[in-house]
Amino acid sequence: MSPIIALLTDFGLADAYVGIMKGVVLGICPTARLIDLTHDIQPQNVRQAAYVLLTAYRYFPPETVFLVVVDPGVGTARAPIAVETAHGRFVAPDNGVLSYVLQETPPRQTVALTEHRFHLPEISQTFHGRDIFSPVAAYLAQGTPLTAFGPPRQNLVTLPLPRLSADAGKIVGEVLHIDRFGNLISSIGRLSWEDEEHLQFSPRFGVRMDVPPALVAKACRVQIGGHPVGPIRRTYGAVPAGTVTALIGSAGQLEIGVNQGNAAEVLGMTIGDPVVLHLA
Amino acid sequence: MSPIIALLTDFGLADAYVGIMKGVVLGICPTARLIDLTHDIQPQNVRQAAYVLLTAYRYFPPETVFLVVVDPGVGTARAPIAVETAHGRFVAPDNGVLSYVLQETPPRQTVALTEHRFHLPEISQTFHGRDIFSPVAAYLAQGTPLTAFGPPRQNLVTLPLPRLSADAGKIVGEVLHIDRFGNLISSIGRLSWEDEEHLQFSPRFGVRMDVPPALVAKACRVQIGGHPVGPIRRTYGAVPAGTVTALIGSAGQLEIGVNQGNAAEVLGMTIGDPVVLHLA
Amino acid sequence: MSPIIALLTDFGLADAYVGIMKGVVLGICPTARLIDLTHDIQPQNVRQAAYVLLTAYRYFPPETVFLVVVDPGVGTARAPIAVETAHGRFVAPDNGVLSYVLQETPPRQTVALTEHRFHLPEISQTFHGRDIFSPVAAYLAQGTPLTAFGPPRQNLVTLPLPRLSADAGKIVGEVLHIDRFGNLISSIGRLSWEDEEHLQFSPRFGVRMDVPPALVAKACRVQIGGHPVGPIRRTYGAVPAGTVTALIGSAGQLEIGVNQGNAAEVLGMTIGDPVVLHLA
Repeated sequence: MSPIIALLTDFGLADAYVGIMKGVVLGICPTARLIDLTHDIQPQNVRQAAYVLLTAYRYFPPETVFLVVVDPGVGTARAPIAVETAHGRFVAPDNGVLSYVLQETPPRQTVALTEHRFHLPEISQTFHGRDIFSPVAAYLAQGTPLTAFGPPRQNLVTLPLPRLSADAGKIVGEVLHIDRFGNLISSIGRLSWEDEEHLQFSPRFGVRMDVPPALVAKACRVQIGGHPVGPIRRTYGAVPAGTVTALIGSAGQLEIGVNQGNAAEVLGMTIGDPVVLHLA
Repeated sequence: MSPIIALLTDFGLADAYVGIMKGVVLGICPTARLIDLTHDIQPQNVRQAAYVLLTAYRYFPPETVFLVVVDPGVGTARAPIAVETAHGRFVAPDNGVLSYVLQETPPRQTVALTEHRFHLPEISQTFHGRDIFSPVAAYLAQGTPLTAFGPPRQNLVTLPLPRLSADAGKIVGEVLHIDRFGNLISSIGRLSWEDEEHLQFSPRFGVRMDVPPALVAKACRVQIGGHPVGPIRRTYGAVPAGTVTALIGSAGQLEIGVNQGNAAEVLGMTIGDPVVLHLA
Repeated sequence: MSPIIALLTDFGLADAYVGIMKGVVLGICPTARLIDLTHDIQPQNVRQAAYVLLTAYRYFPPETVFLVVVDPGVGTARAPIAVETAHGRFVAPDNGVLSYVLQETPPRQTVALTEHRFHLPEISQTFHGRDIFSPVAAYLAQGTPLTAFGPPRQNLVTLPLPRLSADAGKIVGEVLHIDRFGNLISSIGRLSWEDEEHLQFSPRFGVRMDVPPALVAKACRVQIGGHPVGPIRRTYGAVPAGTVTALIGSAGQLEIGVNQGNAAEVLGMTIGDPVVLHLA
């Protein structure tokens, strides 16, 4: 039995911080398999981390322990917590970083990590990833029940939801994330192809729709900033190299990209910029 | 039994794409050992990926599964394939990314990945690395025979070979890759030291030699762009710090570097620039 | 039994060098768990590697094999060595990269890696990480006794210690490392909180103190370059966002940072710049 621990931090890979966390884990749970989600979250960008975690957690086995350390409040009163759900167990600071995931897969049990016997003997003020979160994740992966780590905790911190509104004529969202290829991933989703002509739309971020556009015509047009982008395509390869296009990204979100190019650069767009889907 | 899966992509590490692929693999083959070759291939640079794979595959156990996803044509008609050789099994798009390796170690069997039961239930248009290549690699690593994944496939796409020509007076190649240290790795190889004075040359990329220079004198001179570089040295340490020199790189290719410096910057050279070896 | 091998190099992750080393290890020791400390040491910066290793090794199980390849002298006369200590086994070039660790945890046994049967059959001039250090680390992890790899070696190369001096009025150190967050980590340490008002100081780098300041008042003031920084705080969160402050970093060193900001940028400081702790 080799439990999986998936790590998500803003520590980068230029320092040994992530390696040290793994050393701590293996000292407690020598059979753990340690998988990196990413460590390149923008420093202290809790919201970006929440979104990236949302796109990833369902692809892991449900008993996976997610060790999430994006923690601007390290050393202050914010609580370290562990949460059990039907699709993963999560160890993180209670700063909202889990809130997008927990909206999709509700907590079965949540505890505050107050039991010091599951922490390192010396707790620094600046690196709870090493001193608290890693040992707790290791003990959890090894079979320690969630309730052993501390008392129940309620009323977790939640992040504001991404911008997403809809009326009969359009759906308005924002750029949530820019990936390595420069693709602009928006808050408009989840979208999936119903047939060649229609898209199924089910609002991921809990938006209320005045007119539920359960089916969105493929012919509807996307706009980002002042730029008209045209209809939603199935693949980047459906347009010539260098052309801006919209499609349904791998996480089911409306995405704007450039075939074999970098949309963020070409369009000069950044995180937070508005994206509009004009319904046909 | 812990099968090895080695990953090579252009996904970078700033997103969770690679982590998600690993989650998918472990859901199918929980004992897999996942090793990163690199994920920093230039976006959609199939040829660079083909070269990097060529330098790496022989150092892995022969039963290793290589999961290679540099895939500008994702979602279009290009076929996903799996190939078995004497030195590794390869799962990749059929876009030439395997062609340098397969020139060295010919395919025993090749199939197109058409059997949907080995893919994820939902196939996105943009992330076959997650939806097709990762689950196939996991099943393959776990022992599913190659023929189960789909019908035989022939006439794989091959990339143009790197520039490499030779006559009695010189061998002409090009810069294939620039590594982290700024070393310029050329297409001229494989070279190895026969004795203190002579190099063995065996053309790696299938070039025809008019006059077979099986032995190249150590005294021959290297030129890159307009710059004379001098003879081939055994180590960077053989010249003073800051000096440009030529030597035989770790993959057997002629390489131009600067002792404790960055040759690409010092010389202003880039991928594709010509490299000439004047025979002594 | 899954032995741990922790890797520390300056190879970066853009090439396949690190992946190739792991392939070599797994060909010899298929059960090895390979953990990355970091591969982003500045090219050939032996001293930075020595410091990063110092901050990390104690967090790993004591039987861990550390595979450390920052090796500007590759291919020259510098010896490859392996060292056994109470807190880890180390495989590295003898260029001082282990000297900060070995000052803390003295060698029990040191050998030069002369036995070719534990190396790859072909040894390149430029990549001993692959050809010598990786196979030796793998055999060592698998249980081959240290003495099998070669004869005893003494008088290892040591690096100059970081700047650290003290008198009755102040302790003077230097910036040793800048982490991903832009925090400036100094040579002044180890410091730990004795109580709310006092810090315990035990000089990590063997400095002699004219007046042993075993207890440093919290009220003492830090200065970096020409900038007064104020007293030592417990957490970044203790000051408003954007404020420069000093605290005890996760490795016990005096550290200057900016709450939710980048101290290296704000202050224009770099590695080697002086840091002064004025005793209260």
